[in-house]
Amino acid sequence: MATTRIEKDFLGEKEVSTEAYYGIQTLRAVENFPITGTPVHPELIRSLAIVKKAAAIANMDTHQLSGPIGEAIIKAAEEVAIGGLADQFISDSIQGGAGTSINMNMNEVLANRALEHLGKEKGDYFHCSPNNHVNMSQSTNDAIPTALKLAAYRLTQQLLETMDELHKGFTEKTVAFDAVIKMGRTHLQDAVPIRLGQEFGAYAKVLGRDIERIRRSADNLLTVNMGATAVGTGLNAKPEYIEQVIVHLAEGFGVPVRKADDLVDATQNTDAYIELSAALKVCAVNMSKICNDIRMMASGPRAGLGELILPERQPGSSIMPGKVNPVMAEVVNQVAFQVMGNDHTICLACEAGQFELNVMGPVIAFNLLQSIKILNNGLDVFNRFLIAGLEANNARCSAYVAQSFGIVTALNPHLGYEVAARLVKEALQTGGNIKDMIIERGILTEAEVEEILDPVQMTTPGISGERLLIQE
Amino acid sequence: MATTRIEKDFLGEKEVSTEAYYGIQTLRAVENFPITGTPVHPELIRSLAIVKKAAAIANMDTHQLSGPIGEAIIKAAEEVAIGGLADQFISDSIQGGAGTSINMNMNEVLANRALEHLGKEKGDYFHCSPNNHVNMSQSTNDAIPTALKLAAYRLTQQLLETMDELHKGFTEKTVAFDAVIKMGRTHLQDAVPIRLGQEFGAYAKVLGRDIERIRRSADNLLTVNMGATAVGTGLNAKPEYIEQVIVHLAEGFGVPVRKADDLVDATQNTDAYIELSAALKVCAVNMSKICNDIRMMASGPRAGLGELILPERQPGSSIMPGKVNPVMAEVVNQVAFQVMGNDHTICLACEAGQFELNVMGPVIAFNLLQSIKILNNGLDVFNRFLIAGLEANNARCSAYVAQSFGIVTALNPHLGYEVAARLVKEALQTGGNIKDMIIERGILTEAEVEEILDPVQMTTPGISGERLLIQE
Amino acid sequence: MATTRIEKDFLGEKEVSTEAYYGIQTLRAVENFPITGTPVHPELIRSLAIVKKAAAIANMDTHQLSGPIGEAIIKAAEEVAIGGLADQFISDSIQGGAGTSINMNMNEVLANRALEHLGKEKGDYFHCSPNNHVNMSQSTNDAIPTALKLAAYRLTQQLLETMDELHKGFTEKTVAFDAVIKMGRTHLQDAVPIRLGQEFGAYAKVLGRDIERIRRSADNLLTVNMGATAVGTGLNAKPEYIEQVIVHLAEGFGVPVRKADDLVDATQNTDAYIELSAALKVCAVNMSKICNDIRMMASGPRAGLGELILPERQPGSSIMPGKVNPVMAEVVNQVAFQVMGNDHTICLACEAGQFELNVMGPVIAFNLLQSIKILNNGLDVFNRFLIAGLEANNARCSAYVAQSFGIVTALNPHLGYEVAARLVKEALQTGGNIKDMIIERGILTEAEVEEILDPVQMTTPGISGERLLIQE
Amino acid sequence: MATTRIEKDFLGEKEVSTEAYYGIQTLRAVENFPITGTPVHPELIRSLAIVKKAAAIANMDTHQLSGPIGEAIIKAAEEVAIGGLADQFISDSIQGGAGTSINMNMNEVLANRALEHLGKEKGDYFHCSPNNHVNMSQSTNDAIPTALKLAAYRLTQQLLETMDELHKGFTEKTVAFDAVIKMGRTHLQDAVPIRLGQEFGAYAKVLGRDIERIRRSADNLLTVNMGATAVGTGLNAKPEYIEQVIVHLAEGFGVPVRKADDLVDATQNTDAYIELSAALKVCAVNMSKICNDIRMMASGPRAGLGELILPERQPGSSIMPGKVNPVMAEVVNQVAFQVMGNDHTICLACEAGQFELNVMGPVIAFNLLQSIKILNNGLDVFNRFLIAGLEANNARCSAYVAQSFGIVTALNPHLGYEVAARLVKEALQTGGNIKDMIIERGILTEAEVEEILDPVQMTTPGISGERLLIQE
Repeated sequence: MATTRIEKDFLGEKEVSTEAYYGIQTLRAVENFPITGTPVHPELIRSLAIVKKAAAIANMDTHQLSGPIGEAIIKAAEEVAIGGLADQFISDSIQGGAGTSINMNMNEVLANRALEHLGKEKGDYFHCSPNNHVNMSQSTNDAIPTALKLAAYRLTQQLLETMDELHKGFTEKTVAFDAVIKMGRTHLQDAVPIRLGQEFGAYAKVLGRDIERIRRSADNLLTVNMGATAVGTGLNAKPEYIEQVIVHLAEGFGVPVRKADDLVDATQNTDAYIELSAALKVCAVNMSKICNDIRMMASGPRAGLGELILPERQPGSSIMPGKVNPVMAEVVNQVAFQVMGNDHTICLACEAGQFELNVMGPVIAFNLLQSIKILNNGLDVFNRFLIAGLEANNARCSAYVAQSFGIVTALNPHLGYEVAARLVKEALQTGGNIKDMIIERGILTEAEVEEILDPVQMTTPGISGERLLIQE
Repeated sequence: MATTRIEKDFLGEKEVSTEAYYGIQTLRAVENFPITGTPVHPELIRSLAIVKKAAAIANMDTHQLSGPIGEAIIKAAEEVAIGGLADQFISDSIQGGAGTSINMNMNEVLANRALEHLGKEKGDYFHCSPNNHVNMSQSTNDAIPTALKLAAYRLTQQLLETMDELHKGFTEKTVAFDAVIKMGRTHLQDAVPIRLGQEFGAYAKVLGRDIERIRRSADNLLTVNMGATAVGTGLNAKPEYIEQVIVHLAEGFGVPVRKADDLVDATQNTDAYIELSAALKVCAVNMSKICNDIRMMASGPRAGLGELILPERQPGSSIMPGKVNPVMAEVVNQVAFQVMGNDHTICLACEAGQFELNVMGPVIAFNLLQSIKILNNGLDVFNRFLIAGLEANNARCSAYVAQSFGIVTALNPHLGYEVAARLVKEALQTGGNIKDMIIERGILTEAEVEEILDPVQMTTPGISGERLLIQE
Repeated sequence: MATTRIEKDFLGEKEVSTEAYYGIQTLRAVENFPITGTPVHPELIRSLAIVKKAAAIANMDTHQLSGPIGEAIIKAAEEVAIGGLADQFISDSIQGGAGTSINMNMNEVLANRALEHLGKEKGDYFHCSPNNHVNMSQSTNDAIPTALKLAAYRLTQQLLETMDELHKGFTEKTVAFDAVIKMGRTHLQDAVPIRLGQEFGAYAKVLGRDIERIRRSADNLLTVNMGATAVGTGLNAKPEYIEQVIVHLAEGFGVPVRKADDLVDATQNTDAYIELSAALKVCAVNMSKICNDIRMMASGPRAGLGELILPERQPGSSIMPGKVNPVMAEVVNQVAFQVMGNDHTICLACEAGQFELNVMGPVIAFNLLQSIKILNNGLDVFNRFLIAGLEANNARCSAYVAQSFGIVTALNPHLGYEVAARLVKEALQTGGNIKDMIIERGILTEAEVEEILDPVQMTTPGISGERLLIQE
Repeated sequence: MATTRIEKDFLGEKEVSTEAYYGIQTLRAVENFPITGTPVHPELIRSLAIVKKAAAIANMDTHQLSGPIGEAIIKAAEEVAIGGLADQFISDSIQGGAGTSINMNMNEVLANRALEHLGKEKGDYFHCSPNNHVNMSQSTNDAIPTALKLAAYRLTQQLLETMDELHKGFTEKTVAFDAVIKMGRTHLQDAVPIRLGQEFGAYAKVLGRDIERIRRSADNLLTVNMGATAVGTGLNAKPEYIEQVIVHLAEGFGVPVRKADDLVDATQNTDAYIELSAALKVCAVNMSKICNDIRMMASGPRAGLGELILPERQPGSSIMPGKVNPVMAEVVNQVAFQVMGNDHTICLACEAGQFELNVMGPVIAFNLLQSIKILNNGLDVFNRFLIAGLEANNARCSAYVAQSFGIVTALNPHLGYEVAARLVKEALQTGGNIKDMIIERGILTEAEVEEILDPVQMTTPGISGERLLIQE
């Protein structure tokens, strides 16, 4: 009652469970790399299956792969591309070997599944071999980067949709909060009045640029090195195959995949990953800043700024009754820190590339796909659970404006900076009201004060009246 | 046939599966934080259970918690501490709220399991409440940091054992390679001879310092803020309880846990995490450098340095037959990059602490525990699968020494730097042999040359004979 | 004989040397910020002077500033813009206050110089005030970011010229080395043949993308927030002034400066800096990788790869005679590390922005301008002193190809991966020659071997002849 | 009238100004490395001079260097060690070659100055040679790391003094603010009362740990690799010289310098730098967090928290009259970001070490020395200009406590979490006063409320009275 089969490679042989679709090289990888416990990202697996399908078709187109074997491989690849046999992809996210283990895991699974479709036994690689048939005209060094780029592209499209939604969320608040006058703050010190809607408008603007940056960086991912084989020279890949495989990749992924014009360059260099990671990082920085602002504006309820009221998502403390925390902003801060740290890892890995290949691909993939995913997930819940239900505390915002001295800035063109500064200093010491002081002392009339110190007016460019300041 | 129960908190109510041990707050967390898909590290869960047990005992000691309830909580905690109910801990690794969701997930699971032990229905929190009983005298803000520190401590002890093994591995090679003379290299240029054993001795030395650095940094983790409750002031924690809970923590973990002398400080500051992460990072940098050296020395087999022969672990290419790659070193490089990136994330998160608490605890935990784990796993396989079977190519090493000009450095004290430099320059142009040139020209006798230019001699301090250089 | 004058601000008064053009606020900054010892980058000073000139003209255009005062300010600004009064700018690169001290240093210097032009005493601010006249219609919060962006833009244009030159350098070597066949390497292990020119072609390609990335990121810098004043609302800046100042900035800098469409956004957000820094960082990573490759290929002269011969730039050792090191590549590696670290600092500073302004501007400026400058300087000397004189060691390159097994990859389509792998394994053990083995065993004829294993052929796509591999 | 002399090395010759003490190799370095424009840190120059003096004495002790030459070198080194000839050290901070140019710059300057002392012409290197005499028994690879470590050690001692002063500053405020009751905050939300003195006590505590961490890391720097020469094997350094040079280093620096037990390790590995940089970074993170807190507590004056009153250091705005910003905290934040970025650069450079030497030493030195210096300068002015004059706004702090709900946490042991939470929720909606509600409803008596809800009491461990909560 045999429950294993014996598989061989040029280093020796191993027993493989008869149920397993993977083979000897996958087992070697599992033994060699018990690192994170997290298997390779499923999107990368699905993309690699589509890559394998495209290669098989192109090999058939160019009469290198026979019809029945080709068809069987295609059928197997299609199953994996929609999530089939997911438990057969067991190599760890962080692994040596530039992704050879991921590639061979796929080659073995597809070969064995194809053998089943051909009515053969698993392991009967004479009839369909992981290396000779499934991997025909390919190398790890073109198949894996191509799959990674297209997996990252796909995940990025989801992220961009989420970002579009958040952009709408910010834009709605821009409108909703347009009439909420509040104190602008610089250096955390009272500055001059601003409308809350203007602040949310700025959030929408910067997010809009993030969307463009990420979209543009993602577009680079459509340029792939398929056909490069081992080092970019295309050894063992027929020119006609190279043309065809790109066509079939475009069909398989439904996006305009392009062949790199220089396959040596495209195999050696990893700047597309760093550029995308950097774009994600810029977005992370921007969103973290926004979350910090929101958390400060929502601080309180009694001993904080209290300008914003957040939707209550969960009790905020196991000990403090009634406490509610800005958890949806905090989680975005943490996502941002993770994306920034991942960017660091990606840069280190990219800098470590040597000669024809960057062998640090697996750790790049691990971090890049995680960054896209968690940024997507974080911004999605941030939008739905925080921004959507966000309210302004109008009364509190107005009260701060009324109390503040920042409004005297509008007096500069009329009194000069020094005179205005002395008024502020005196008011701070006496606790007095600036407007009253100006009128009482006959500096300006009440009407002038009302016009010049109108907070709403201050939130748009201009000075009230003409500069009175005498020069000469 | 009811399959759910209704649970309430001060924000409302939710249906919870009757099978679930977790409750309403856990469900809120799951809804709020679908971020990484990776649940909280199991070691943190196990540690938190031990913390809960210690608190329960201390609450019983101080007559705050009745015997039956206390015993039921302890029993539940003991089950979780050895891995029981693991599927009930479903909150995501990256979450808002400083770990409140992890803490409440634990409080709910233990309360419901305790209720079962008491013969009550799950959800009957009057008889055993997540907040009032399981969380008694505690806050997320002391229970979670305490559990994290002790989880990190435990994982670090495993890492230290692995590092000790690797240290032995390096030391064995120091001995085994003691007689292998090779060219030392600086700037990747031929320098002067060195013994391969000296290089491995240096690897052992720096690893030894890493062990000490990590051990020392881990020791800080034994100082916990248990008893701090919400902000470090110990509100709602009786002084006697605080003393007792430390005793029971020490018992529960089997290590000398200490109470921080300033609980406000210990609740607010996260330097212990950054210090440990930094120590891991220093180790990562050192190991990455060693792996780089080993990969270069093992480069070839024909078009590289070829000084080291690595154990063959797996076929290195899906396309290039017979190729074997230094995958066990590559995986350590990648682990190192991950640890360095994680350190960045941890620093960002620590810098973001505000006032009495650092709410970014979850992302700190995620990265810190991952760093310890993957460094452990990476160094373990590196030692077992690469260092243990490593061999030197003695012939190649010797040949390089014989060909090289670096040995002329030993002539400096006898000829002066300038004369020696001119000889090298000439030899490089003519391809001539330096030793022959010196003898032919009568600069030194053959006997002097053999003595002064003995490579073995050059690998220890000293000059052969006296300086001949005439001064004045 | 008075050698000082007394200046006042709303915090008090200070003695200022009568020779000094700066005033009380500059002295306060010098006292407050003795941090790096490196004053603000001179390009930022020059740009700020041009900004002040543009503002003065626009203030005159809009009848806010009288002719004589305006002319005097313009004249002073023109002097500073070409490097005049450089020793008067004494505030430190790292300073609190978002650049207020830089701005006031400039305002004071221009006011005092303008006073001289007006025939007045320095310090007679009634006739020309730093705040009321020089700073009219402006705030630190628009003047400084505008000046920084345009300073960075200018330095980036120099960098782009240097990069273009290096691109030419790489391209020349692409041609010059086109016929140099060498072993391609992946994982530092022998892979398949490649031409050295192909490698340099890849260097040119990636640098070309860096040029585009940096050019595009620099273009963002032309969008400025001039007119935003304190918080982006334009308080105290007349709409006509805002339009005019942009026109005069474009004239002053000779580049198409644009007003941001949302001045609140443009005052609050710093993504343009991170994007540029990220583009510089991607370039740094790419160049560091290339330098690593060059250093490895140039390793030796006797105990290394010896494939490249670098121009000799300086003796490489104070002790080892005749040693020459790849110093021009090493300096680029170090520049790259600095740029990467600077990027980290910039991200941290950008993330720390709060509400209407990022007050961390000075440290952003310090790092961003340094990164541009050192990348420019590093790539310039790298091109002139290394790439320009670089030579290939053709004989060495060919010898490696002849010895290597990597060429058997071309046999895959004919023999299958497994058979080829066994041949390699045997050859490695026996030291035998692969070609001889194939012919002796009658696997292929000599003619077939010569055709299939032609290294030159292997450096372009395709397989020699048809796949012989039998498939069902 | 010749104004130049001709100097030669094995690569050719150059004209050197007759006034210059540096020579041909320094000029080559200046030509090769026009990178940052910032010359090597003067502390490194001074330390290197002391190293040269120690080597000269040890060479004389061991009869390798004649008396007159040795004395002349020592005299020259002593001049440089106290800042003499400072303008002769012109090599750039970032340079290729692992510091060879710094070392040769020093060797040349000392040789020429020594020649003057010997009554010879500059450039007459037969009588005193940069390589043969000044550099005798040394290599760049031991002299430069030794000098760097001891320069860093010295600067660190200054930093530690500054940190001690700041620790005193924090401690004084701990006492001064001991009676200031304020709201503790977690998640920026009102938590439970705390004393401001407790917060400053926590600042003192964490700084105390930073002091210990930095002191300990600095101590590692006293272990040097002097005597290692080129690769750590000590070639050309007599054993007696090695012993003596350590003795003279200890004398020269006045600190207990130690020889590394493994000179190969000490030459190859750079963990001492990363460890120190990491310790500086932990401190930077801690101080940045404290500055963030202080800036938030000082926010206002009218639209912020207003709990702290900072000394006014400079006008905070060129446009907003009377505005004063927390510039002394902001500058520390920026210093912290710089130190964190520098740490990144240092790690990258350390990871790039290869084989016997890390050639990236110059960029490590540049960043490490800068980090120590700016942290010292930043903390010094922070202490003197902010902490020393810091005041609490006691009234504001009290008012927040009186208004807040956080105090209900103290009711948990008496009412249970759920009941307390409902009270908070109701109070938040009605705006009612919690204490009144409890008394009116007869939940507790007025006396009980006063006892249980005493804020001062809440800032120390314990519960008021016994838990009333009924448990089965």
